[in-house]
Amino acid sequence: MQFKLQHTDPGSKARAAEMITDHGSIKTPIFMPVGTVASVKGVHQRELREEIDPDIILGNTYHLYLRPKPEILQQAGGLHAFMGWDRNILTDSGGYQVYSLSGNRKIREEGVKFKSHIDGSTHMFTPERVMEIQRIIGADIIMAFDECTPYPCDYKYAERSMHMTHRWLERCITHLEKTPLLYDYSQTFFPIVQGSTYKDLRKQSAEYIAGVGAEGNAIGGLSVGEPAEEMYGMTEVVCDILPEDKPRYLMGVGTPINLLENIALGIDMFDCVMPTRNGRNGMLFTAEGTINIKNKKWENDFSAIDEHGPTFVDKEYSKAYLRHLFVANEYLGKQIATIHNLGFYLWLVREARNHILAGDFTPWKAKMVKQMDKRL
Amino acid sequence: MQFKLQHTDPGSKARAAEMITDHGSIKTPIFMPVGTVASVKGVHQRELREEIDPDIILGNTYHLYLRPKPEILQQAGGLHAFMGWDRNILTDSGGYQVYSLSGNRKIREEGVKFKSHIDGSTHMFTPERVMEIQRIIGADIIMAFDECTPYPCDYKYAERSMHMTHRWLERCITHLEKTPLLYDYSQTFFPIVQGSTYKDLRKQSAEYIAGVGAEGNAIGGLSVGEPAEEMYGMTEVVCDILPEDKPRYLMGVGTPINLLENIALGIDMFDCVMPTRNGRNGMLFTAEGTINIKNKKWENDFSAIDEHGPTFVDKEYSKAYLRHLFVANEYLGKQIATIHNLGFYLWLVREARNHILAGDFTPWKAKMVKQMDKRL
Repeated sequence: MQFKLQHTDPGSKARAAEMITDHGSIKTPIFMPVGTVASVKGVHQRELREEIDPDIILGNTYHLYLRPKPEILQQAGGLHAFMGWDRNILTDSGGYQVYSLSGNRKIREEGVKFKSHIDGSTHMFTPERVMEIQRIIGADIIMAFDECTPYPCDYKYAERSMHMTHRWLERCITHLEKTPLLYDYSQTFFPIVQGSTYKDLRKQSAEYIAGVGAEGNAIGGLSVGEPAEEMYGMTEVVCDILPEDKPRYLMGVGTPINLLENIALGIDMFDCVMPTRNGRNGMLFTAEGTINIKNKKWENDFSAIDEHGPTFVDKEYSKAYLRHLFVANEYLGKQIATIHNLGFYLWLVREARNHILAGDFTPWKAKMVKQMDKRL
Repeated sequence: MQFKLQHTDPGSKARAAEMITDHGSIKTPIFMPVGTVASVKGVHQRELREEIDPDIILGNTYHLYLRPKPEILQQAGGLHAFMGWDRNILTDSGGYQVYSLSGNRKIREEGVKFKSHIDGSTHMFTPERVMEIQRIIGADIIMAFDECTPYPCDYKYAERSMHMTHRWLERCITHLEKTPLLYDYSQTFFPIVQGSTYKDLRKQSAEYIAGVGAEGNAIGGLSVGEPAEEMYGMTEVVCDILPEDKPRYLMGVGTPINLLENIALGIDMFDCVMPTRNGRNGMLFTAEGTINIKNKKWENDFSAIDEHGPTFVDKEYSKAYLRHLFVANEYLGKQIATIHNLGFYLWLVREARNHILAGDFTPWKAKMVKQMDKRL
């Protein structure tokens, strides 16, 4: 993978860059739509490509491991071929889902034993196994197997967990070297900084991770319930340590405002279920603030959903029609809201990039944060 | 509305024709996708237009009356404007839903008192009220308010009900004349033949309906559980009586084979929830037979869903991927199956039309009926 830093904002640590993999270019800052089980919920691949237009999407190793299972993905020739997506894919390591979805999991030095949230069957994820699974899924960027600590997390636990995550990282790297590529394109491995909300642990972890010399680095364990200010504090500490000439990925973040604030701190990559999940619940993000489309106030508002929005749904459907679909529990409503929200998120990171390149990111960000904080 | 008969099949009573309304041309035979509550479930209007390409869709008066309600539709300027569909729309009269969805309804000469299946609130549909509601919805073709008898239905009940449907028809016509158009295009009214599965009643009703001299005529009360042969028997009796120079619409029918058999008997128009509802349950209709995509046999079949299918989903997604979406309960699966099935239904009626025009409908139909009867 190539990484070219293109411009740094004079008023902040925001950067515009380009990553190039065998599945094409990823212009950063980037937001990666979440395609949990080989589908961005309710969105056709064609709409994703042509309307939302991300250079990269995310798949979840935990979900893909359970369904359709690695055998099927391998027979298909990997996730790209299976789902019909020829741009970049990143897979997480499954760690987060094992902790959050599986009611019954035991974390040991060896790895994590867990029960499937679907049928209760027992499975074991080790750093080695997760590397093998990610080779089979075949994403362009694959993640280290880590422990994602909850919030709040006591210091002792966070420290022990961080050290285990570092030991697991060594096992991931060792095993990955022994596990050949399965398809005709390469995969890039990112390690993950942990350390909960403790600055000294974050610093220690960031130094450890930076020392590994990977082609890109991630920050995990944030956006798990801590106040935004604490998240920004951790991002700042970590970004100061992670190498400037490598992409930085903040996992699981966040609101549109979280994106801009973290871009200002030097983050290049994001993913989050918020635009899709909140969209399915009738919450729309716009440049002027958020909309709860179920509110009666939209009942006879026949104006376009978002007249400045980049996707076809923004102009082709009215707020009143979209509200009706939610009230009548018609799935098309969820489809429309999802496309709108993802379209907006991708527009937002493209705009951020344009303003970084133009040198006026900081004043633009200040204006946008103020606007987007409103409820319409 | 204009109706131009273009060609009649030498080997059957199948006809190719064209209807022209203020919202454009409808080439027949036609299948009308069902857009119950102002949405063909899971399908964007753009996909409907560009991929499935029907000249006309159907809306349900009962559902639209309850949600979004006539006031909202009137403020929007009618259903076309509300949902963003600029081709033809037909609305049923709400009769069928009142009988099938509302647990609690009382049928009287005056009309039908019923409880909403959504909130249990009490409402009254009379022939007059239903004409007013259909003026507000603003479909291009609107239907008489009738009683749709169940199957089986005893003779006495069927006879009494048929006479009431005829009396209601007079009230519909009288009231419609007094109810002005609300929008800048005209509406065409179709009366409905009833009579259950009794040939003498069907004959009597068809003669009554033909005598009204409407611009198009419908056959109701079929596809309610009777054997297909009984349905064809009734269609045949009725088509022999309904005028040849007016379109004939068989309501609520049916399977792909039902469509071809009824086209052969002189039917021009159809609607049915089968392609959409069965699609959402994982049943695909194809020219080579039906597919239950949930079956394990498709698990690693990476071939296109339907390599000869007319829509983008047919070639862009594999059977294994579609099966995975159904197994993982991902809504995109329902979206894909719906587009596939509607695309197939519309392809089927377009092909039927082409073969009628070419003069070889009968042998083509025989071949298709045999093929489509298979389970793949």
